Amino acid sequence: IDAEDVEAYHGLTREIHPADVADLIGLLREEERDALIAMLGGAIPSEVLAELDEDLREDVIEAMEPAKVAEAVMELDTDDAAFVLEDLDEEKQAEILALAPIEDRLALRAALDFEEDSAGRLMQREFFASPAFWTVGQIIDRLRGTEDLPDKFYEVFVVDPAFKPMGSVPLSTLLKSKRETVIQDIMSSRDMRTVPATMDQEEVAYLFEQYNLISAPVVDDADRLIGMVTVDDVVETVREETQEDMLALAGVEADTGLSDTVFETVRSRFSWLAVNLGTAILASLVIAMFDAAIGQIVALAVLMPIVASMGGNAGTQTLTVVVRSLATKDLTATNAARIVFREALVGFLNGLIFAVIMGALAGVWFFASGWGTEAAAINLALVVGVAMIINLLAAGLAGILIPIGLQRAGADPAVSSAVFVTTVTDIVGFFVFLGLAAAVLLPAAG
Amino acid sequence: IDAEDVEAYHGLTREIHPADVADLIGLLREEERDALIAMLGGAIPSEVLAELDEDLREDVIEAMEPAKVAEAVMELDTDDAAFVLEDLDEEKQAEILALAPIEDRLALRAALDFEEDSAGRLMQREFFASPAFWTVGQIIDRLRGTEDLPDKFYEVFVVDPAFKPMGSVPLSTLLKSKRETVIQDIMSSRDMRTVPATMDQEEVAYLFEQYNLISAPVVDDADRLIGMVTVDDVVETVREETQEDMLALAGVEADTGLSDTVFETVRSRFSWLAVNLGTAILASLVIAMFDAAIGQIVALAVLMPIVASMGGNAGTQTLTVVVRSLATKDLTATNAARIVFREALVGFLNGLIFAVIMGALAGVWFFASGWGTEAAAINLALVVGVAMIINLLAAGLAGILIPIGLQRAGADPAVSSAVFVTTVTDIVGFFVFLGLAAAVLLPAAG
Repeated sequence: IDAEDVEAYHGLTREIHPADVADLIGLLREEERDALIAMLGGAIPSEVLAELDEDLREDVIEAMEPAKVAEAVMELDTDDAAFVLEDLDEEKQAEILALAPIEDRLALRAALDFEEDSAGRLMQREFFASPAFWTVGQIIDRLRGTEDLPDKFYEVFVVDPAFKPMGSVPLSTLLKSKRETVIQDIMSSRDMRTVPATMDQEEVAYLFEQYNLISAPVVDDADRLIGMVTVDDVVETVREETQEDMLALAGVEADTGLSDTVFETVRSRFSWLAVNLGTAILASLVIAMFDAAIGQIVALAVLMPIVASMGGNAGTQTLTVVVRSLATKDLTATNAARIVFREALVGFLNGLIFAVIMGALAGVWFFASGWGTEAAAINLALVVGVAMIINLLAAGLAGILIPIGLQRAGADPAVSSAVFVTTVTDIVGFFVFLGLAAAVLLPAAG
Repeated sequence: IDAEDVEAYHGLTREIHPADVADLIGLLREEERDALIAMLGGAIPSEVLAELDEDLREDVIEAMEPAKVAEAVMELDTDDAAFVLEDLDEEKQAEILALAPIEDRLALRAALDFEEDSAGRLMQREFFASPAFWTVGQIIDRLRGTEDLPDKFYEVFVVDPAFKPMGSVPLSTLLKSKRETVIQDIMSSRDMRTVPATMDQEEVAYLFEQYNLISAPVVDDADRLIGMVTVDDVVETVREETQEDMLALAGVEADTGLSDTVFETVRSRFSWLAVNLGTAILASLVIAMFDAAIGQIVALAVLMPIVASMGGNAGTQTLTVVVRSLATKDLTATNAARIVFREALVGFLNGLIFAVIMGALAGVWFFASGWGTEAAAINLALVVGVAMIINLLAAGLAGILIPIGLQRAGADPAVSSAVFVTTVTDIVGFFVFLGLAAAVLLPAAG
């Protein structure tokens, strides 16, 4: 690719989709990439630019001349243009915007004024709206005559005289209708969902998924139509938001990826590991409380991680299901009490099953190793069993109450729940197991 | 809602979106639900049926008469109809299909013949295709005259005489073009991605996301156009597939949810916990190998869970990032070697940082507790540090090599990786820490 063959490159990219070109650029080494940019006269085509990975795009834009960047950005719809600009630093942004024609500059400034992750950022200002009294024929003629239409659109929004959206007509319905039909007669208000520009993109994604939307009108504070969000932007949001939850549960920051440097990665993972170190130390303080018991019965040290680890896993299972259900709004205030009870019951029942299994195993193993009498073995089995039941019950409760509590407190339940849950299961696991063992076994042994 | 007021219900549902009606039905108790169905003359409207939760839909269909179900199902597009039928048992399916008109029955049978999770199941058989030589005017006239069109569609597929898709034209482009324009001149083949009916839905979702598709033609083995997939079906797939990965990492079966019974939930979580019990026992066997050392130095029992837990967390971080990157195809054979090296380096560096922190803490704490001499405390600090470095390095390597290996072996990397990774970090953590301690500290202590 990076042979200096401009013609070959252009030939290739005419046939390849911009998204694939962007992926190919991502695979190049830095020198190759810079050579490619230089070769193409200092500019990457705008559609490829929009498809590049965030980190990569920053580097590519650094390597391009501001004038070329401005030119490329102006060719894009506002949502893609804002998307390209939002990651740049203030100075660079201003430099590029200064080079843009005045109306584009104003539109982009307005887009960038909306908060990141809001519908205002996702939306494009290009859309097609029609008054309620136009006919299908009038609209088609208008569409053929107008230049400044969005690249692609899927619905005509019908607006009232105050420019408030009243309903929408899918293009397929428009095409199926006769020229004389008045748009108001075929529009549907039930299938349209109006999105305020300030709405969070997670909320927007929920609307699209719940109502199978393809596009939605975006309105300002006065309910006036100012843009539209299309489903292709939302597909990415859906994946991103779900993946953010998944990464957050594992303690990885959401905007990190494989293209970060080693140093960035070390730093982004460090904070979670540091928090984990704190909770692990807490748990080990609990163990230290019972050092005398462990010194006398080493079997306790062997068995205690099993009780704690089962609790940790059961808690994570519940937590993951709950975080997902909160995200898809299957878990609401209406059914929360029922689900809490259900998870507690599930924890208790699984605790019972594993109490029997692990209690039996521990007892037999303790006795067979010749570490104690039959009576001591039975006592140990009981201690393991009771600790298992209590810890799995605690795991179920922590797994649901902690994320619900965090959400009520206005925090993201995916981000910090996992630490709290494993802290609870570790501490409860070690404390109950060692505490019971010290109470039941030591007097017997001593 | 369940007052016997049929009129009020109909009034309500005319204004409420079917998806919301479905959610409301989901919140009803069983008796209320059955009363509602009876009240509506034994049938739930077809569009609501398609939006119901799987488990719920089964119950609702059980409560409806087969003839009413057949009637409702036939009103849907083939993809939604197949979606409603696929969860029923064979007998019920046959009963309902027998009541359907012959052509619908054949179409549905064909849809159900495709494997679950394949493009053939996602697709609908209703679509609009045009030969290459038609003009925009001809197509619009045809659209106005044809009855059997899909409910909504977004593109016209252009086909050659053998009915192979050549390209597509978004409806917005069609509307912007003059009546005389020949369709071939405005069609794009670059922006169209043809989907074989046998393609896995995860793959389909990837295509839609990568190329910002709204709809795509589905072809049979001979590359003939047989249907289309639309983006609304894909949005759900994207969320489902990502969530499946998230749930799988936590050891929860994908098709379980809050509406399962307690018994189903206990069973579905049991198997993962049982596997975890097995690996926890393995880890405890490692601990048991060093029971003499623990008996002599109880501090080891206090510190060993910290080393293991840090490894487990670091491994899970890497694993989650890798599973996500495999799903989004950011991690491929091309860059695998580089990323493996990178993760190993990140593991090593974080290991180094935490080795210093934890080694220092452990040494100070050991000495301050008066458990040993200064020399023993320094030795303990060194042992903790080295164990930490080795375990975090192992965690990084396991976190990436295990999912990559599983994927190469044809398994789903999300499903079983987590067990393997934590098994590795537990065993390595305990073995290295206790082994080093036994080798370094015991002779010194003894």
